[in-house]
Amino acid sequence: MAEITYNSWLSTYKRPFGAALIGTNFEFDLIIDTPHHVAVNFVIQFENGFKSYEKMTPSSENRFHFALNNLSEIGFYNYYFQIIEFDGPHEYRYFYGATDIGGRLGKTYADEGAVIAYTQTIFLKKEKAPDWYRNAVFYQIFPDAFAQIGHANQKDDIFFYGKETDKPYYIREKDGDITRWTFYGGNLQGIISKIPYLKTLGVTALYLNPIFEARSTHRYDTSDYMTIDSILGSEADFEALVTALHQHDMRLILDGVFSHVGRNSKYFDFDGKSGGMGAYQTNKSPYFDWFSFTHYPDDYKSWWGIKDLPTIDKSKTSFQQFIYGDEDSVIDKWNGLGIDGWRLDVADELPDFFIKGIRDTLERYPEQVLIGEVWEDASRKIAYEQYRKYIYGDGLHATMNYPFRDIILGLLVGGLSPELAAKKVMQLSENYPRDVFLNNFNNIGTHDTERILSLLDHNLTKLNLAVGLLMTLPGVPTIYYGDEAGLTGLKDPENRAFFPWDNINQDTQKIYQNWIKIRKSIPALADGDINLFYSDKIFGFVRTDETQTAIFIYNLANEGVSVNAQDLTFLTQPVEFTPFFIGALESISKLT
Amino acid sequence: MAEITYNSWLSTYKRPFGAALIGTNFEFDLIIDTPHHVAVNFVIQFENGFKSYEKMTPSSENRFHFALNNLSEIGFYNYYFQIIEFDGPHEYRYFYGATDIGGRLGKTYADEGAVIAYTQTIFLKKEKAPDWYRNAVFYQIFPDAFAQIGHANQKDDIFFYGKETDKPYYIREKDGDITRWTFYGGNLQGIISKIPYLKTLGVTALYLNPIFEARSTHRYDTSDYMTIDSILGSEADFEALVTALHQHDMRLILDGVFSHVGRNSKYFDFDGKSGGMGAYQTNKSPYFDWFSFTHYPDDYKSWWGIKDLPTIDKSKTSFQQFIYGDEDSVIDKWNGLGIDGWRLDVADELPDFFIKGIRDTLERYPEQVLIGEVWEDASRKIAYEQYRKYIYGDGLHATMNYPFRDIILGLLVGGLSPELAAKKVMQLSENYPRDVFLNNFNNIGTHDTERILSLLDHNLTKLNLAVGLLMTLPGVPTIYYGDEAGLTGLKDPENRAFFPWDNINQDTQKIYQNWIKIRKSIPALADGDINLFYSDKIFGFVRTDETQTAIFIYNLANEGVSVNAQDLTFLTQPVEFTPFFIGALESISKLT
Repeated sequence: MAEITYNSWLSTYKRPFGAALIGTNFEFDLIIDTPHHVAVNFVIQFENGFKSYEKMTPSSENRFHFALNNLSEIGFYNYYFQIIEFDGPHEYRYFYGATDIGGRLGKTYADEGAVIAYTQTIFLKKEKAPDWYRNAVFYQIFPDAFAQIGHANQKDDIFFYGKETDKPYYIREKDGDITRWTFYGGNLQGIISKIPYLKTLGVTALYLNPIFEARSTHRYDTSDYMTIDSILGSEADFEALVTALHQHDMRLILDGVFSHVGRNSKYFDFDGKSGGMGAYQTNKSPYFDWFSFTHYPDDYKSWWGIKDLPTIDKSKTSFQQFIYGDEDSVIDKWNGLGIDGWRLDVADELPDFFIKGIRDTLERYPEQVLIGEVWEDASRKIAYEQYRKYIYGDGLHATMNYPFRDIILGLLVGGLSPELAAKKVMQLSENYPRDVFLNNFNNIGTHDTERILSLLDHNLTKLNLAVGLLMTLPGVPTIYYGDEAGLTGLKDPENRAFFPWDNINQDTQKIYQNWIKIRKSIPALADGDINLFYSDKIFGFVRTDETQTAIFIYNLANEGVSVNAQDLTFLTQPVEFTPFFIGALESISKLT
Repeated sequence: MAEITYNSWLSTYKRPFGAALIGTNFEFDLIIDTPHHVAVNFVIQFENGFKSYEKMTPSSENRFHFALNNLSEIGFYNYYFQIIEFDGPHEYRYFYGATDIGGRLGKTYADEGAVIAYTQTIFLKKEKAPDWYRNAVFYQIFPDAFAQIGHANQKDDIFFYGKETDKPYYIREKDGDITRWTFYGGNLQGIISKIPYLKTLGVTALYLNPIFEARSTHRYDTSDYMTIDSILGSEADFEALVTALHQHDMRLILDGVFSHVGRNSKYFDFDGKSGGMGAYQTNKSPYFDWFSFTHYPDDYKSWWGIKDLPTIDKSKTSFQQFIYGDEDSVIDKWNGLGIDGWRLDVADELPDFFIKGIRDTLERYPEQVLIGEVWEDASRKIAYEQYRKYIYGDGLHATMNYPFRDIILGLLVGGLSPELAAKKVMQLSENYPRDVFLNNFNNIGTHDTERILSLLDHNLTKLNLAVGLLMTLPGVPTIYYGDEAGLTGLKDPENRAFFPWDNINQDTQKIYQNWIKIRKSIPALADGDINLFYSDKIFGFVRTDETQTAIFIYNLANEGVSVNAQDLTFLTQPVEFTPFFIGALESISKLT
């Protein structure tokens, strides 16, 4: 068989790189080294599964060329190559496609069904998020557990921790249900009181987990979208928070939980304590058609089968109007009070038209950002057998970048090789529209994951690398409250401990402060391209914009090494630099 | 066989009535009606099981007499009668003893092993409790759930209810253990603030469930006998409470929990958070010999096998000294601050010498009362194969009178006939030393039982009868906090709800107030004898002292009846009164 090379990451083979606007003309070149006569087809597969076999043109001795310019639908396309090789009386047919484990150099396949395709993203329009957002360092606050001023407002049938230092604890019935939620009593005035702290830390924007009236501590079971949860404070407290943040040049985004509501919300009113006009109480309810009852009233669709969270049928006009359509919609209410954007919970559960509806409403307000909770590569997401198209324009600016978290943890504790890590980052960089990739909301821990310090086995040297990667990889970094103060814990509820105001770990805090400073002082980090490199134990990349080149090198070995550019593999263009020594588990950044 | 009558309740047959001081001379008469020649033996059985057969003297035609005057040990003795009947050549031997189900008329037995003996209590000395006590109306407070002033002091790893109106709730691990206790935050200042309320209600003394430092909400797992639990307040708060109560002519007794301590007490220190000098931490502990380790340190004796409550070996001198022997003993400390007595938790677990030790110490303080928690007839109690002698002098003044509660509930909801109820009360009256019987600490509900209103199915008419019986039967009545305010609930934790200060049931409160007034206005209720009577649906009794006769009649039927003294059965002396009508489930009291 012939020797074939194609690498979608290099301009020798494909132009332009990565995701492209609709209407873009693409050039593909395949190099094939064989003594035999060959013909090559460019195979492209559309979203509906149909394939087209396009003849590639031999353009030079061993090079086949194809110009593609008829991609008229946004989304992503699969493509690969069919080779027909003539050896005397024999005609061999085989394929060339991508490989699973990274690097866009591919391999040959005998069986077409086994081919892993290359993919090409086509998007509708560039979604550069507002400058404030692209340059932000975010801080995510779980409102119950951050700070308290004054005494907590009370509610029926809840418990308050005796001390802020108590470990988080859920009260579970035998069947696992939680009927009495446990609260520290953190509140909005508490957050306001800590703005000076947040300024000192260096963060520039807040993402708050849900703050609307709800039963639980996490408040993802909304009771009333129009009301601040009484434990957190009043609407006046909320306005005071927005005002105080803006006075300090800080921004605020809220958590929009629109796929489901709480069973005991005013909309469903399972326990009849919310006015009796919920859908569970009466089929005359104004909210009745929001829900999908399989047998009224006890059987209904709910999120992941959790009966506490009845699912909303987002196709219902009255719900769309309520959330974003009416003049006094939920979005309008809170944007009217000055917030700077939203994070949409379980974005995969929200239809594209619903996300677009929210985005359209947001366009009426200045400098808004819309982020979706997605756990995977959002450019390749299939949910409910549908390709999701929320990041291709007129939808989300960004998604929560859990794949980066996986890569960072993989490098530090998961045995992921620098080579594979570099290729995974590069792959995401290829798949996402460039702006979305730079907009993505990066984290190394949230309210849904283990605390980073616990996963790193309390190793501060590794924490320094993890925070460095968070702050220097493409995307907008988010710090989960208290990670900088040394909080530890595995998943929910351990990861929701109260902020240790009287016991802040100065060493971890310094790590965060240092990296935030670096992040904010190098504009190429917010807007620059990335060019990754690696060796056996070195992972690094170059971030470049029009004016700046910044090189970041992370030594993942437990021993120091001398680094020479010649010993490194670059995924795209090699970069030269003076050799240097880097200590065990250290990082170095160089500006040129 | 001959017709035989003997009734230990009537002076025709036995003199004096009931329990008697050591050295008392008894007269017994048996009446036997037979044409045959008979001989009768008085059979008396001692505590060690030995029996003595004493020949009774024929004193008149059909009467056999026996004078008993050699009972030299306190406790109770069994006695019955052996009859030898001569019919021509035949000699029949059989027995006459008591019956199981009340009434001290007995019956004949062919088999001596089957005989139910009459019993005779012999006691060491009369234990008239202080006047204040005998005339008191007590109010039992579960301190966490009564009243709160100011904010609760905090502790590690506990929860506070969000609202006082929340239903009590225990947080149980899968294995049933409670590792995080739930608190309302009631405190001593709260109790002080409610003294005016208690005065209005009419109560004159408080019994507080434990208030010493502990981990749990109930505080029966003492951590430190010398310290007020910090959630309840300080020692200064405690002194303020004593002072305030005494200023208002009210008295205070505390709960002494001396049979076991909390696993996390300073004495045991299972979790090492109490200074590390507990017996679990080191066998050099000054408390090491208080505990019984079967395998050090993890296997140890505990109360009912509950590992959270390691049992104290009360035979250890150092523990005795600590509780009551040293000059600065636990008893001395709190009596030095002015309390008026103690209720001893699980008195059956405390050796007689230990109770006597406490009593001896109390004798150094004025007007003290000592009450024991016993659930059965304390005069007949056998615990750990030993006859208990705590109520025969130099021990307890009184025990908690749960048998009366059983009788009251039996009458109202348990299908207990007035006849049997009357006989059960009479039986207790016979068994107990008269003073102890009048001292007994009566209740119709405590922290260890269901709330009375729930057991009565929220029937206020029945509640009126229950409270009436509580206030008029012999003994000192105790009201469990909140019963008067309409609190409901089954056992622990339901019976420990917070006092409903904003929602006091005026109807139930009035019932209690009325009966407390009656109780306090009739001295014969505190010191008088009792003479019970009954009919099919009427239960009643006469209380008499030197100056007063008070008749109490309770109609347990759902319809009114005309009551005529001739239709009633009196257990001792019939009493005459004018016929009257009594409504359904009503009570009538008459003073003469």
